[in-house]
Amino acid sequence: MNALLARARRVRRTPFTEGVERAGVTAWSVYNRMLLPAVFESPEADYRHLKDHVQVWDVSCERQVELRGPDSARLMQMLTPRDLRGMLPGQCYYVPMVDETGGMLNDPVAVKLAEDRWWISLADSDLLLWVKGIANGYRLDVLVDEPDVSPLAVQGPKADELMARVFGEDIRNVRFFRFGWFTFQGRDLVIARSGYSKQGGFEIYVAGGDIGMPLWDALMEAGADLQVRAGCPNLIERVESGLLSYGNDMTRANTPHECGLGRFCNTQTAIGCIGRDALLRVAMEGPVRQIRPIAIGGAPVPVCDRLWPLMAGAQTVGHVSSTAWSPDFGTNVAIGMVRMTHWDPGTELTVAAPDGPRPAVVRDRFWNDHGSR
Amino acid sequence: MNALLARARRVRRTPFTEGVERAGVTAWSVYNRMLLPAVFESPEADYRHLKDHVQVWDVSCERQVELRGPDSARLMQMLTPRDLRGMLPGQCYYVPMVDETGGMLNDPVAVKLAEDRWWISLADSDLLLWVKGIANGYRLDVLVDEPDVSPLAVQGPKADELMARVFGEDIRNVRFFRFGWFTFQGRDLVIARSGYSKQGGFEIYVAGGDIGMPLWDALMEAGADLQVRAGCPNLIERVESGLLSYGNDMTRANTPHECGLGRFCNTQTAIGCIGRDALLRVAMEGPVRQIRPIAIGGAPVPVCDRLWPLMAGAQTVGHVSSTAWSPDFGTNVAIGMVRMTHWDPGTELTVAAPDGPRPAVVRDRFWNDHGSR
Repeated sequence: MNALLARARRVRRTPFTEGVERAGVTAWSVYNRMLLPAVFESPEADYRHLKDHVQVWDVSCERQVELRGPDSARLMQMLTPRDLRGMLPGQCYYVPMVDETGGMLNDPVAVKLAEDRWWISLADSDLLLWVKGIANGYRLDVLVDEPDVSPLAVQGPKADELMARVFGEDIRNVRFFRFGWFTFQGRDLVIARSGYSKQGGFEIYVAGGDIGMPLWDALMEAGADLQVRAGCPNLIERVESGLLSYGNDMTRANTPHECGLGRFCNTQTAIGCIGRDALLRVAMEGPVRQIRPIAIGGAPVPVCDRLWPLMAGAQTVGHVSSTAWSPDFGTNVAIGMVRMTHWDPGTELTVAAPDGPRPAVVRDRFWNDHGSR
Repeated sequence: MNALLARARRVRRTPFTEGVERAGVTAWSVYNRMLLPAVFESPEADYRHLKDHVQVWDVSCERQVELRGPDSARLMQMLTPRDLRGMLPGQCYYVPMVDETGGMLNDPVAVKLAEDRWWISLADSDLLLWVKGIANGYRLDVLVDEPDVSPLAVQGPKADELMARVFGEDIRNVRFFRFGWFTFQGRDLVIARSGYSKQGGFEIYVAGGDIGMPLWDALMEAGADLQVRAGCPNLIERVESGLLSYGNDMTRANTPHECGLGRFCNTQTAIGCIGRDALLRVAMEGPVRQIRPIAIGGAPVPVCDRLWPLMAGAQTVGHVSSTAWSPDFGTNVAIGMVRMTHWDPGTELTVAAPDGPRPAVVRDRFWNDHGSR
């Protein structure tokens, strides 16, 4: 049911909200208690433009948790089953964060600024409170805080060209999931080749809200002939790409292995990880249900705002958590969690959508599948 | 700027969302990553109805953190500077929750079910993660989880009558901030005399989402001649009443004393409270800025979605964080934070509203001031 988002300070504005409003946002989401644009023209038009051109995304809601001090690296390793010992300053790692039961608390990107300084660039949970609680309880020598750092993403096939115009040609040499330091109006900014689409691009960690709108305007001006526009993470593109969304496709009820993130876990060697004991067995034996790409038949599906059961006859064998109609692939694309007995590619199931049952098929891969973060 | 709320599983539905949608919600907020209705007919019409009749509010977003086990009481005291030693099962306490710096993490209601079983009924932050982190770090013998318990509030001058019809006459004997156990369709439910308005009423802690809509429907049916309607926390009424909102009127940057919650702090005797050391001095000397009721002149103010500076000449002496036009009091009512030099009642200031400067006056009390939680 369509209704407005009520505004209040509690749903925080970002350094770029003025630009987002000026660009004509038509739907918001709320993410980490902050405004996240969800639609400008329409999901389909935004999708087409993202795949063909370049967009500037206000993803300030990917708040940072900053760790500083001698116990920073130790604390980081306590939070995740991914072995961080080989990680170098200048690298970004996608890190499942788990609690003592191995349940997912967040799936952020860790940014290693220095041996004793890290950012955790968050998905949608107040992980800051978990990290502060752990740091306090274990009496670690570390400062934990949320700095004034707001990511601005530049995504799409023309992202390199646009970024080179604003930050110089060197930006083209930043490798995937690496970052470099670049200057804008005299301020040094971390810029990583990363982002929540498979169309390529960068995330600018804008330190200091005061340069938010100047940077926004500079990107818009420099990209006028590239047809740059304000955009946002696009539901259709992310489901085609199999980019998981914390809170949608996984929650604290799930292990990283269920989420297909086993390749980011080194549970044996991640010594100190708080969830290690809980995860050792699932790491050895594998999960009994796992995320799968699901194609759903019929006309374009309605919005998926709750789990839709996946059925094999009368038996519930999983659920679908994110869905969209894909113009490019001419089918409904979906992310589901399926039990081992029914997760093989080609398995035919029925999804109980709110508008009635539909045929669903487990696929071997997502649709935009060229590499992973 | 008006835009829709985009729906997704991540912004969780509640056991009552179906009823809220059926009742014609026109604006949502998002609170603890869950849908919270914000407007039905209009803020003014909803306000009038709340003050004259009775409303049923879906406040499921006041999620519970449940503590169970031998260290529950010890953990509760670690979280708050309010001395909980005298608290009895059957009582509810409004408890500021603070971190190791004395900064507010939440301002929930603690519900003591038994010596070794508590609920923390949350304002808008994922306090669950802080509590889990502390429990883990200090190796406490306690289970910490979010149970399937969704509060449904019944608020307004006819609340006693409506509740007596559904739960029996004994409900009238429940005292303010006490709770009793009452039965609905064979299920025992905690019902407290409490709620986020000053119009009187109850909060039903609905244990088990399956009875959500049956209870909703039973209340609507029983109250038809009382003009019962779906409602929600009303911005105008709450500002008139001086009911603070975490994230709007206070954040982690504030101590309880700044928020005027010093009367809920027993910092000397709250032994074990993690923020005790940080708060001892402010508890003795008092804060240098504090929440105050502020009357703002001129026509009805726009929505306050960011801090509005309070000025004394060219000097910034505070800010306003929540505002509304009050039909009953014929003025703009507001909640502000003001420096000690300018917080005396009657002090004339200027508020820098987005549509221009307006006269503002510090008041001695809020408008609907008959008691406090």
